[in-house]
Amino acid sequence: MGKTSTHCLVYANLIIEGREYGFHVFMVQLRDENHRPLPGVEPGEVGPKYGDNGTETGFLRLFNVHIPRNWMLMKNQQVLEDGSYVKEDKNSKAQYGTMLSIRAGLVMGAGYRLAQGVTIAVRYSCVRHQGFTNTQGESNRANPEHPIIHYQNQQYRLFKQLSLAYAFVFTGKSISDKFQKTMGDLATGDTSDLPEMHATSAGLKALCTFEGASGLEECRKCCGGHGVLLASGVSQMTLDYTTYCTAEGDRIILELQSARYLIKMITEARSGATVHGMADYLNEAGKIKIGEVDPSVYLQYRADTDEDFKDLKLLSSLFRNRALVFCVETADRLNSLIKDGLSYDDAWNSCAVDLVKCSRVHCYYVILQNFVSQINAIEDMKVKRILICLCQLYALINIMEDLGSFELTHKQKGLVRSVINQLLKEVRVDCVPLVDAFEFPVSTF
Amino acid sequence: MGKTSTHCLVYANLIIEGREYGFHVFMVQLRDENHRPLPGVEPGEVGPKYGDNGTETGFLRLFNVHIPRNWMLMKNQQVLEDGSYVKEDKNSKAQYGTMLSIRAGLVMGAGYRLAQGVTIAVRYSCVRHQGFTNTQGESNRANPEHPIIHYQNQQYRLFKQLSLAYAFVFTGKSISDKFQKTMGDLATGDTSDLPEMHATSAGLKALCTFEGASGLEECRKCCGGHGVLLASGVSQMTLDYTTYCTAEGDRIILELQSARYLIKMITEARSGATVHGMADYLNEAGKIKIGEVDPSVYLQYRADTDEDFKDLKLLSSLFRNRALVFCVETADRLNSLIKDGLSYDDAWNSCAVDLVKCSRVHCYYVILQNFVSQINAIEDMKVKRILICLCQLYALINIMEDLGSFELTHKQKGLVRSVINQLLKEVRVDCVPLVDAFEFPVSTF
Repeated sequence: MGKTSTHCLVYANLIIEGREYGFHVFMVQLRDENHRPLPGVEPGEVGPKYGDNGTETGFLRLFNVHIPRNWMLMKNQQVLEDGSYVKEDKNSKAQYGTMLSIRAGLVMGAGYRLAQGVTIAVRYSCVRHQGFTNTQGESNRANPEHPIIHYQNQQYRLFKQLSLAYAFVFTGKSISDKFQKTMGDLATGDTSDLPEMHATSAGLKALCTFEGASGLEECRKCCGGHGVLLASGVSQMTLDYTTYCTAEGDRIILELQSARYLIKMITEARSGATVHGMADYLNEAGKIKIGEVDPSVYLQYRADTDEDFKDLKLLSSLFRNRALVFCVETADRLNSLIKDGLSYDDAWNSCAVDLVKCSRVHCYYVILQNFVSQINAIEDMKVKRILICLCQLYALINIMEDLGSFELTHKQKGLVRSVINQLLKEVRVDCVPLVDAFEFPVSTF
Repeated sequence: MGKTSTHCLVYANLIIEGREYGFHVFMVQLRDENHRPLPGVEPGEVGPKYGDNGTETGFLRLFNVHIPRNWMLMKNQQVLEDGSYVKEDKNSKAQYGTMLSIRAGLVMGAGYRLAQGVTIAVRYSCVRHQGFTNTQGESNRANPEHPIIHYQNQQYRLFKQLSLAYAFVFTGKSISDKFQKTMGDLATGDTSDLPEMHATSAGLKALCTFEGASGLEECRKCCGGHGVLLASGVSQMTLDYTTYCTAEGDRIILELQSARYLIKMITEARSGATVHGMADYLNEAGKIKIGEVDPSVYLQYRADTDEDFKDLKLLSSLFRNRALVFCVETADRLNSLIKDGLSYDDAWNSCAVDLVKCSRVHCYYVILQNFVSQINAIEDMKVKRILICLCQLYALINIMEDLGSFELTHKQKGLVRSVINQLLKEVRVDCVPLVDAFEFPVSTF
């Protein structure tokens, strides 16, 4: 917009005769036939950025600019010639469609971008040799060395990202499918799925873009000195991607939106209503008295073998109950602060770090559920077997890095660790086909 | 080196008559009086990098280049005219001096660089307003808004980084002091402090540069859309700093070096020797039978009030015992794998993710100890009071984000959370003076 565009769409407050109607979308011509800004139009370019400099990001100031009445996008609402405002009520929420579609794309995109980074880092780690195969014998430069993928830390770091890449792509696929259904419903005036779709997609956009960017940076670091060079491909990719954590809705803001829905559903479940969709586990809150959630009921498991911790049903249950307990406890703290006399806003802010975590643990559960359901649809048993390993790895590393939210015994923590180490070895065998499977053309790196 | 240097220092293997003497340092002239490379010298430049592009990073290939014998740096070892090699034994480890000095500088540097990022982000957060002070009343654009530092998530994210900045600067100061002492000892031939200094400084370099880079990125994200612009200062800072995670020793490699020392000290303690220095808590391992460490003995505390969790002695004890238990358990797993028939290298690699964590929890303890001892030297009670808050915040956030390593009850976890929230409010009051205190001249941003 700063230098190139001739027209743009402006999201602005519609005001008629002093009354505000909120955001609407207007087409505005910026430049004349000689590409000079029109009177009252002050476009500019924001200058060099952290990444994504191929996109020319602009700013715009408008002074008394007139546009024809019908340059407002008027499919679902109109300003008539006499200045009156008309809105078709059944489509009052259709404007959310664009936003949901963008978010679904961002979740899928997080998976594919991360997959590109993992592809580079895994391939590099399989050809780059460093560290002697025997460090205890006589030192000799001619001794054979390991490819760096041999090392447990390299495996942990990269296969974690590999599992997230698959997880995000599968979840992107699932919510795109749901999005199609929601859009169909909206067209018939049925908006019942919209609040959950809105909340979950907000949380997922926040989580996946953040994890995608952190994951790309981890892949870059896994390439050592080569990862510092832009020539590696993965470093420019990291820089260009990172802005997505902020663009299209900052992480924290979106996660608080998602949390607002979860807290509201707990209140509804407790007042006897039924919660539908991915947050339906919150119906259990109806059985829990306020302030009396007992984590030992939900978070202590009789799991004492490796096989127990590979059981996707058990892992799903752990994820579901973590989300349940954390959301209910946070809702109870919020309510007790309000009872103690805090305003709603102050009470909300006093719980905000935990509210963000409510959104995250909810989304981790959604992602695991989507991973499992996509796996169930696979018929090729060999493919299915290795994707189950990746799914287990996603779940167990997630548990390992958030042990404080569970109530595992010391022995169970040890089992989680040991199963992760087993899975790393299994994924090691197939890590090259697992990245090749994304089929990125060489020209995209 | 690729374009500018006329001379360089080459770290290369010294070979005399086919015998290898390991790395030595040689001065080599690269270019002639017309700045053209000399015969056999092939210098190059690595090309654009992720950051730090102000530094011209080069590569070099040498073919049959001859240099005068005395262009080898020969203070502590010499090649004589007859080709014989002489090394002064008492200074055989003096070459570590340069490395230790660089590492001490990197730890201090991590603190100051992070402090610069925090300074920008805290000041921005105090002037940038967003979000109405009352979201429950009637919506009106004219209503007052909060500065974003008001929000709990912004406080958690930024004050965590603020506490780390102070922590790293204090630890940099402490190890610089110790480094001076070690260098003095080395000059008299006393190398007893060297192994611990080497191990701890390796772990600290790895940890502080990593946390410094992640922290800068977090500060950048806390500036929202403005943080995407290079004009914000904090984004270029992040890019330029991040390479330090890899340069001067990759994180994982250094942490494994540090872990090797810790594991060795456990073996020594168990064979009756006494461990000195910052890892002296490992002497306790002498009382623990192999494979029989009981975490409940070391990690369960009778702490049940806010005040308990603000007690720096209790916090130090928690950090020390986390390091003790984690290191001893890892050493025991390593030994049992070797007993089961694995080679030392394979057993080591099978525990490598945990070994890295050994180094980290040891370093977190060292950093806390240094923080506490620097605070104890402060006489101004008002300054001391707020730095104690920051120190408590450093410790409690660290615990909160690694709850799985402790054995806290559900109620105690809640206390940790609630004390953190109290501390955020206290630090909020003084956050501007706390960043102003670093006194960065405006010209350095």
